Amino acid sequence: MDLKQVAKDTTKVLSSYLTYQAVKVVISQLSETNPPLAIWLSNFSSTAKIQDGEAYIQELMGVEQPLAFRIMTVREHLAQEVTEFLPEMTIAAIAQANMKHRCQYLEKVTQFNLSTESSDPDAI
Amino acid sequence: MDLKQVAKDTTKVLSSYLTYQAVKVVISQLSETNPPLAIWLSNFSSTAKIQDGEAYIQELMGVEQPLAFRIMTVREHLAQEVTEFLPEMTIAAIAQANMKHRCQYLEKVTQFNLSTESSDPDAI
Repeated sequence: MDLKQVAKDTTKVLSSYLTYQAVKVVISQLSETNPPLAIWLSNFSSTAKIQDGEAYIQELMGVEQPLAFRIMTVREHLAQEVTEFLPEMTIAAIAQANMKHRCQYLEKVTQFNLSTESSDPDAI
Repeated sequence: MDLKQVAKDTTKVLSSYLTYQAVKVVISQLSETNPPLAIWLSNFSSTAKIQDGEAYIQELMGVEQPLAFRIMTVREHLAQEVTEFLPEMTIAAIAQANMKHRCQYLEKVTQFNLSTESSDPDAI
């Protein structure tokens, strides 16, 4: 298990996801101040490769540089404000989800055994 | 900018991504101990909705419960080992990528100005 590689890959995914969130923020701001530009950015983002944050920024830089700079500033802000809570939140979310899956499994198994027992009175 | 919502959504994405990484770890382990099962899990994961970690675990639980439990254990371990480094790594990665984009833009603009000046001697 190469934990360093996992951390690096996860950082890349996180960085791309925060770029996507920054795009959403900027579209929402523009829809109030400059609706036509909001529509333009929304259309651009649905066709451009937003899965890869860096490729997206690079592409946007070529056609609408001020917007690219604005999204870069917002994603930097989001990273500073949001990431510090992520370790605790993610560990808790996974622990909680795992417990839920285990409980559901136990419930299923228990009900299965109960219904088997009740349908077979000789087993008692 | 709803930072709480961004943090929640990011946690969900992170949790799903760590599930995907846990699946990769388990496939890699199985390929040494039980190759047929490794191939089975690999095929299952390519058709199942691995984008949503919880739906994936739920689906796997219905057909191969011990594997689902194993993946759940691995993703919990990954979350504990990896997430603590993510805030620092992500903030650094985004700051670095932003600087790179800004430098590339400055280079482009400077070269453009230089070539414009050199092609127009009267401008000097």
